[in-house]
Amino acid sequence: MTIEKQTYRSGPFKDIFAQGVKVGNVLHLSGQVGIDASGTAGADIATQTKLAYENIRHVLLKFGATMNNIVDETMFVTDMTELMANADDVFGARAEFYGGVPDVCQTLVQVSALVLPELKLEIKCVAHL
Amino acid sequence: MTIEKQTYRSGPFKDIFAQGVKVGNVLHLSGQVGIDASGTAGADIATQTKLAYENIRHVLLKFGATMNNIVDETMFVTDMTELMANADDVFGARAEFYGGVPDVCQTLVQVSALVLPELKLEIKCVAHL
Amino acid sequence: MTIEKQTYRSGPFKDIFAQGVKVGNVLHLSGQVGIDASGTAGADIATQTKLAYENIRHVLLKFGATMNNIVDETMFVTDMTELMANADDVFGARAEFYGGVPDVCQTLVQVSALVLPELKLEIKCVAHL
Repeated sequence: MTIEKQTYRSGPFKDIFAQGVKVGNVLHLSGQVGIDASGTAGADIATQTKLAYENIRHVLLKFGATMNNIVDETMFVTDMTELMANADDVFGARAEFYGGVPDVCQTLVQVSALVLPELKLEIKCVAHL
Repeated sequence: MTIEKQTYRSGPFKDIFAQGVKVGNVLHLSGQVGIDASGTAGADIATQTKLAYENIRHVLLKFGATMNNIVDETMFVTDMTELMANADDVFGARAEFYGGVPDVCQTLVQVSALVLPELKLEIKCVAHL
Repeated sequence: MTIEKQTYRSGPFKDIFAQGVKVGNVLHLSGQVGIDASGTAGADIATQTKLAYENIRHVLLKFGATMNNIVDETMFVTDMTELMANADDVFGARAEFYGGVPDVCQTLVQVSALVLPELKLEIKCVAHL
């Protein structure tokens, strides 16, 4: 059974997974983290949040989509206490990307590690087009 | 690219995320936890399970859906040993909500923390209508 | 609101959840782990990876689907350091199942425990048909 997939690949792991896969009107995105184009992680959780959403927006753009196309977010953080202590900055940065109150679902859990030790959060999104 | 979203928002975080977002015939739900309408967490994992499914059912109802519309569950627990020690109560309570053997997928993992320290599980569901 | 679900159930937990649920052209799979048909876990993470993908392929086949139908993977590992130390074996085994570079998204996080103490990874997939 063959399906028509549209994919976007980039970065050092582009032979392992795609950053975005679209089939029909559903766009899955790989978990995005707070690193810039040079691979450097943001110094704090608010900076990493901004970088992660920049990376999400970058993937969406490759499919002609915007933040408004996101319907579901899963946030994996490595320190819930740190997130809560910086909630205004983190969710303020996020609100700027969404351009207001986001029409998305959210699930937020603390995991014991992400792909790199310096990462503080990873955001997995599902979008519809 | 604009999509038609139907959303349901409630609770103290309603400006941060929606509890449910429907687009086409897919309904995403935010992770639901074992707290009651006053914000009090259930005393044990079985009680939290019941409360979480009550919250899930509440969101589903806002979209004219029932437990039978759920196709996928991800369960995040904070103590797998505690869950297994109370498996009959937890999955018994869940079966009552589904009205029998659930026609849903399940992924179950232990995370190191949820949004509040007293929470023992969070359930993220996807439904189709 | 009634939906038409096609399900596949098997194994010791078949009264608790289905291994696969198809609705429309979306197929959700329960998280698959590295155990064989007798319930024995693979001795190392590469062996568990192979067994998990064998289990994934088994579920896909029940719906007339193949690895190419997968669009999204979430990998939950219990030791990211161990995964990275064995990355060539793990992702090499995975590439064999996909028959080359996988056209799928991936999210990879370390959780603090899986359903059985001997398990090193669990893979949750979404497929489209």
